[in-house]
Amino acid sequence: MAASDSSKEDHVDVLIVGAGPAGLMLANWLSRFDIRTRIVDKRGSKVFNGQADGLQCRTLEILDSFDFAHRAWRESNHMLEICLWNPDEHGCLQRSDRIPDTIPGISRFQQVVLHQGRIEQFFLDSIKEHSDIRVERGVLPTTFDFDETKASDFEDYPISVTLRTLSDEDSTPQQRQTHQKLAEGQQAVIEDGLFRSNLVADDTDNLISAAEAKENRNANEMETIKAKFMVGCDGAHSWVRRQTGFTLEGDSTDYIWGVLDIIPITDFPDIRHRCAIHSANAGSVMVIPRENKLVRLYIQLQSTSHQKNGSKADRSWITPQIILESAQRIIHPYKLDYKYCDWWTAYQIGQRVGDKFSLRDRVFLAGDAVHTHSPKAGQGMNVSMQDTYNLGWKLAHVINGSSEPSILSTYEAERKLIAQQLIAFDRRFSRLFSGRPAKDVMDEEGISMDEFKQAFEKGNEFASGVAVDYAASVLIAKETDDEGQENDTDLINSKKHQVISKPELATKIDIGKRMPSFKVLNHADARPWHLQELLKSNGRWRIIVFPGQLTNPLNMQRLKKLGESLGSPGSFIYQYTPSGNAIDSVIEVLTVHSGPRAGIELLDLPEAFHPHHGDVGWDYWKVFVDEESYHEGYGQAYANYGIDPTLGASVIIRPDQYVSWIGEVDDYEKMSQFFGGFMKQRRA
Amino acid sequence: MAASDSSKEDHVDVLIVGAGPAGLMLANWLSRFDIRTRIVDKRGSKVFNGQADGLQCRTLEILDSFDFAHRAWRESNHMLEICLWNPDEHGCLQRSDRIPDTIPGISRFQQVVLHQGRIEQFFLDSIKEHSDIRVERGVLPTTFDFDETKASDFEDYPISVTLRTLSDEDSTPQQRQTHQKLAEGQQAVIEDGLFRSNLVADDTDNLISAAEAKENRNANEMETIKAKFMVGCDGAHSWVRRQTGFTLEGDSTDYIWGVLDIIPITDFPDIRHRCAIHSANAGSVMVIPRENKLVRLYIQLQSTSHQKNGSKADRSWITPQIILESAQRIIHPYKLDYKYCDWWTAYQIGQRVGDKFSLRDRVFLAGDAVHTHSPKAGQGMNVSMQDTYNLGWKLAHVINGSSEPSILSTYEAERKLIAQQLIAFDRRFSRLFSGRPAKDVMDEEGISMDEFKQAFEKGNEFASGVAVDYAASVLIAKETDDEGQENDTDLINSKKHQVISKPELATKIDIGKRMPSFKVLNHADARPWHLQELLKSNGRWRIIVFPGQLTNPLNMQRLKKLGESLGSPGSFIYQYTPSGNAIDSVIEVLTVHSGPRAGIELLDLPEAFHPHHGDVGWDYWKVFVDEESYHEGYGQAYANYGIDPTLGASVIIRPDQYVSWIGEVDDYEKMSQFFGGFMKQRRA
Repeated sequence: MAASDSSKEDHVDVLIVGAGPAGLMLANWLSRFDIRTRIVDKRGSKVFNGQADGLQCRTLEILDSFDFAHRAWRESNHMLEICLWNPDEHGCLQRSDRIPDTIPGISRFQQVVLHQGRIEQFFLDSIKEHSDIRVERGVLPTTFDFDETKASDFEDYPISVTLRTLSDEDSTPQQRQTHQKLAEGQQAVIEDGLFRSNLVADDTDNLISAAEAKENRNANEMETIKAKFMVGCDGAHSWVRRQTGFTLEGDSTDYIWGVLDIIPITDFPDIRHRCAIHSANAGSVMVIPRENKLVRLYIQLQSTSHQKNGSKADRSWITPQIILESAQRIIHPYKLDYKYCDWWTAYQIGQRVGDKFSLRDRVFLAGDAVHTHSPKAGQGMNVSMQDTYNLGWKLAHVINGSSEPSILSTYEAERKLIAQQLIAFDRRFSRLFSGRPAKDVMDEEGISMDEFKQAFEKGNEFASGVAVDYAASVLIAKETDDEGQENDTDLINSKKHQVISKPELATKIDIGKRMPSFKVLNHADARPWHLQELLKSNGRWRIIVFPGQLTNPLNMQRLKKLGESLGSPGSFIYQYTPSGNAIDSVIEVLTVHSGPRAGIELLDLPEAFHPHHGDVGWDYWKVFVDEESYHEGYGQAYANYGIDPTLGASVIIRPDQYVSWIGEVDDYEKMSQFFGGFMKQRRA
Repeated sequence: MAASDSSKEDHVDVLIVGAGPAGLMLANWLSRFDIRTRIVDKRGSKVFNGQADGLQCRTLEILDSFDFAHRAWRESNHMLEICLWNPDEHGCLQRSDRIPDTIPGISRFQQVVLHQGRIEQFFLDSIKEHSDIRVERGVLPTTFDFDETKASDFEDYPISVTLRTLSDEDSTPQQRQTHQKLAEGQQAVIEDGLFRSNLVADDTDNLISAAEAKENRNANEMETIKAKFMVGCDGAHSWVRRQTGFTLEGDSTDYIWGVLDIIPITDFPDIRHRCAIHSANAGSVMVIPRENKLVRLYIQLQSTSHQKNGSKADRSWITPQIILESAQRIIHPYKLDYKYCDWWTAYQIGQRVGDKFSLRDRVFLAGDAVHTHSPKAGQGMNVSMQDTYNLGWKLAHVINGSSEPSILSTYEAERKLIAQQLIAFDRRFSRLFSGRPAKDVMDEEGISMDEFKQAFEKGNEFASGVAVDYAASVLIAKETDDEGQENDTDLINSKKHQVISKPELATKIDIGKRMPSFKVLNHADARPWHLQELLKSNGRWRIIVFPGQLTNPLNMQRLKKLGESLGSPGSFIYQYTPSGNAIDSVIEVLTVHSGPRAGIELLDLPEAFHPHHGDVGWDYWKVFVDEESYHEGYGQAYANYGIDPTLGASVIIRPDQYVSWIGEVDDYEKMSQFFGGFMKQRRA
C-alpha cells in the first residue's frame, strides 16, 4: 500500500484526500470494515499545536463509540462555566453573569478543549489498531478523471487520480518554514513552541516513522489510483472541490480577529473560565482556557485602516505584540501578559457553504471543503468529523454489499442542512460578539448584552451537537417535514418505502436525532452501562426492544412472539446476514426490560435476545434492566425515554446512533418493511 | 544499566529482586524520583494469564494515584453482586441471597477482576514513561553479602549481590516448559491458551524486546551489585528471605482446591456473578466472572485419599477433567461444560507470615515473601502491591535526603500487622468456605450459612483494602494504641516527637487510614474532582486546609494568619525544600473552603495557597470549594469529612494518601512540630 508500490497503479474502494479530522474520522470508520482504503495528505506531518481545539458533547459521544473518548476526556481541559463580562454604567468591566458551559443533562459528556494534534493522534492510533490503513503524507493528487459511463455501476471504478510524492520542502507548511527561517537567520521574536509543547511519546514515534517513510520513497514519484469512491477532506481550498467544479457560496465580513495561545500572567479572576468580554470601546475578547496551563484568546483587532472593504484584508501588519496590546486594552483595568506563546494567528471571518456535497454519489466533499466559518464557536472540527461520521458507514455498507447505493444520497440531504444551520448560527454569533455593547436601550448601533446572553444560552444546545435532527428519508422513518428539506428525487422515490413510526410510544426519543443515553444494568451481572456505550460504531444496525415489565404475562407473551419471528430462519435478520457470520453481526438485538431483575432469569427470554454461540455458550451482554445500581445511581431509562412500562416499544438505531424508527414492541412487520427499503438479501 | 554492562560492577540505591506486582509497584514508585534502581527477575518473561486477578477498591485508588487505574477499570470485569447458593431442605441448590460485592460508598472504585499479566503491563508502561528503569529478566541473584559495619551509614553500600544471567531454558517457568513438551511430543489434552488469550499489541512489543535483550547478552555472565537497599519481592520461595535467615511461620491445611479459567457453557443463572456455592455433600465452588467471557472457578476437590496429613499432598493426579467433574457434581442439577480453557492449576491452602520484614532497615521483604495464603479472597496481589506502596516513598525520601532513616522502621510496624490480619481473615474465610453446610441448627460439624453470609459481609470491608489503619508512629500523629502494636524501640523513641491531633475537628476522617474521597470543585474553573485525584503519588506531603466559610471574617483571618506563616522564608516548608526547587515540590498546600464560590476570588487568598511561578503566573490548581457541580452532583465534602464549616480544620496527608495529623486550621506550630519529627533541613 506504500506510495513506492512498484505497480504504479492501485485499485481501491475509497480514496480519501486530506488527513485532518474529517479525513481521519472517515479512515477510522473504514478501519472497522474490510474496505480497501487509501488516505493521502499533502502536508509532510500532522498538526502539533494550535488550530481547532473544541470538542462538543456529541463529538465525545462519537469518539467513545470508537473507544477513545476517554483519552480526550483525560487530557483535555474541561470547560464548566461561561462568564460574561460587560461594562458597567461607568464603562468599567464587571462580571455580569455565569452560565453553565454545557446545558446540564443533555449528554454524559461536557464540552472540553484539546488541541487538534492530539485528537488526530488518537485517530491514528485507533486506525492502526484496527486495520492496515496508514496515512500517506507528503502525497498530492494532481490529475482527476471521472468516467461517467461507469458511475451507475457501483462495482466499477469510475474515478482515476494521479498521486505525486512531494519533496520535503513542498510538504512543509508555510508557517513552519517561516519559523525555521526565523530561527536560523535572526533572533526569533516569539517562542511559538513548535515541536515542543504537548509532545509525548507517541508523537515522537510518529515523527520517526514519517522520517523512515521518506527514506523509502522518491520525491516526484507518480502513481495512478482507480477508485470506486473519493472523498475530499482537503480543507477550505479543496483540490477535490475544484475538480468537481463545485463552489462555496457566501462572503467575508470586515471583522479581523487575532488568536493567541499563551500561558497568561494576569490578575483577571476568570482566566480559567470560558469568558466573553465586551469592553466599552476597545472591542471584545473570548477566553478559552486550555490544557497544559494554556489559554486561547480570540481578540478583536481594532485597526481597520489596513483593510479594503469587500476583499481579503492585508494581515501582514499583525504580530503577537499587536494582538496582545489589543487584549490589554479590552481587559483593562486587569493586567495581562505572557512569557510563553504556543501559537498565534489572525483571521478574517468568512462564512461559506458548498453548493453540492457529492458528484453522482461517487465523489463526496466533507469538512472545511464544504463549510467555512469563524472558529470562535468551536464548531468547525466537530461538524467536519460529523460529516464523515455520517458518510463512513454508508460507504462501507454499499461497498460490502449490505445496502443499496440509494442510501448514499442521504449524505448530502442530511449534512448540507447542518452546514447551513452552522453558518447561520455563526453569522449571528459573530455579529453579536464583534459588536460594541449598547450603552443603553436607546443605543441602537450597540449590541444588547441581554440579547447576547440569550443567544449564548440558546446557541449552547446547537453547539453541543446533540440537537442535530436528520429529516425523513429511507433511513429515517418519520413524517416528512418539507421545511428546510431540499427537493431530492431519491427522497421522493423513497417514500414508497416510507415506514410510519409511532413516536407516541417513546415520547422523549426523537426520530432523526441521536439516541439519548441513560444508565441501565446488565441483567446477567448488574453492571451499569450508559445505553450509548452499548451502541459501539462497528457497523451494526440495532433493534432495541423495550418490553416493559416482564412479570406482566402479556408483555412476556409479546416478547416471545417477537423472539420467535426474529429467531426464525426466514426472518429479515437471517436474510441480511451472510452465511457463516454471527447472527448479530449485521443487526444486533438489545433488550431493556423495566425490571425488577429478581424473578426473571436470562434464559426465560427467547434465544433471539441472548444468542447461543457453540464454543462460548450464551451471550450475556444483550439484555439489560432499568433498575437502580449499587454505586452509580438510577438511570430511570423508561421515564427518561418516555416509554410506558406497561406498553413498551421497539426502536431501530442506525450504525451512527441516530434513531430510525419507533414502533410497537412486537411489530416485526414494520421492522422488516423498514429494513426492506434499502438492505440487500445476503442468502439464497 | 543493561546486564551486559562491561564494568561487571554497579552501584545502585535500590536493588529489587522479583518483578511481580510487589516488585513492579516499588520500581514504579522509584521511577517518580531520581533513584538509581535495578530490578531483576529470574523468569524469562512476564505473566501472560492465570495467577492472581482481583483488584481491590484501594488498589484501584493507588493505581489511579499513578495515573493508570482507568486502564484496569476499562479492561477488567466489574463484579457488582455476590450470589450465595445453598442447599434447600431437600438438598437442592437454591439462590439464598444477593449482596453487593463492594460496600456502597466506601470508595469511588469497586472491586474488579483482570489477570495479572495486564496489570504488570500497566506498571511496565508507567515505569517506562517516567524513568530509564527496565526489568532485567532471566537474571538470578546468586550470592549475598551484608557488611554490618556499613549498616548505620545510610550513604554507604552495605549490600553486595552477585547476579547471573540465565540461559533461556533456565528462565522458562516449569508449566510453560511442560506445555511446550506436550505440544511437541503428543496431542495436548487441553487448550490452556498460553501466548494467546488477552494478547494485545503492547504484549507483542514486550516479547520482541525480550528477544532482543537476549541477543545482546551472554548466558551465565556474572555481575556484582553494590546496593544501599535491597527489597525481596521474590515470592513464597524468596531467595532474599533465605539470605536473611528469616522464616515464614504458619501451616498448611488439608484442603485441596482446583482452579479453572474457562469460557463456561452452562445454564447456571448466576455464572456472571461472583458466587459462593455450597452443595449439600459434594463440596463448594466459588465463581469469579472475568474479562473476555472467562470465568474462574475455585473448586473444592473431594478426593482426599491421595493426601498425607501434615505434609504437602501429591497433586499429580489432578487434571482439568477431574476439576471439571467435581464442579459438575457441586453445581448439579445445573449443567456445566467448556470448550475453551485458558489456564488451570491446583493448590493446597497454607497460611504463613514472615517473622521479620527487614534486616536493619537495609534489606526488606514484601509480598508473598512474607505472607502466603489462599487465593480465593482475591487479596494476595493487592496486599503485596500495598506492601511496596508503603515502602517506596519512604526509601526514596531517605535516599534523596528529605527524611531521617528512622521512618524506615514504620514499614515493618505498619505492614506486619496487615499481614497478620490478612492471614486471620483468610483462615476464617477458608474454613467457612471449605466446610459442608449445616443441615440444621443441631448439625455442629456443618457450617452455618447465616454465619457464612455474615462473614462474607464483614469480610467485604477488609477485602476492599480501605479499612487499613496504621498505628501511631512518627508518621501518624494519634494516641498510641498498644493493642496489636509491636514493641519497637524506634516507635518508643519517636514519642518525644509525638504530636497530638484533634480528631474531633474532622470526625469522619480517621488518622492512620487513607484519606476518604469526595467531590470538590476547583475554585478557578468549577471543574469537579474527587479529592483523591488531587493526591497523586509524586512523593509530596500535603497539608489540606479546610478553612470553612471564607465569608466569615474570622475564618478568613485565620487563613491569612496561616498563609503568612507558611509563606514566610523561615517557614518549615521553605526549610525542607531544596533551593531552586518549586515551593510545592516537597510539601504541597491544598485548600478546600466550604463555599460559596461567588463572592470569593482566588487572589483574595494569600499567595501561599496559590503560589506564583514567574513564567506561568498564578497556580490555579490548589484551591477548591465544597459546592454542587453542574453535571456530577454534590460531594458534600465538609459533611462527609465531619468538618464544621464555622470552625474548619487542617489535615496532613502522607505521600501515600494516609492521614497523619488533624488539627486547627491555623495551628502552624503543630504542623511544624510534626514534620520536625523526621524531616531534614535542606537549606543553610
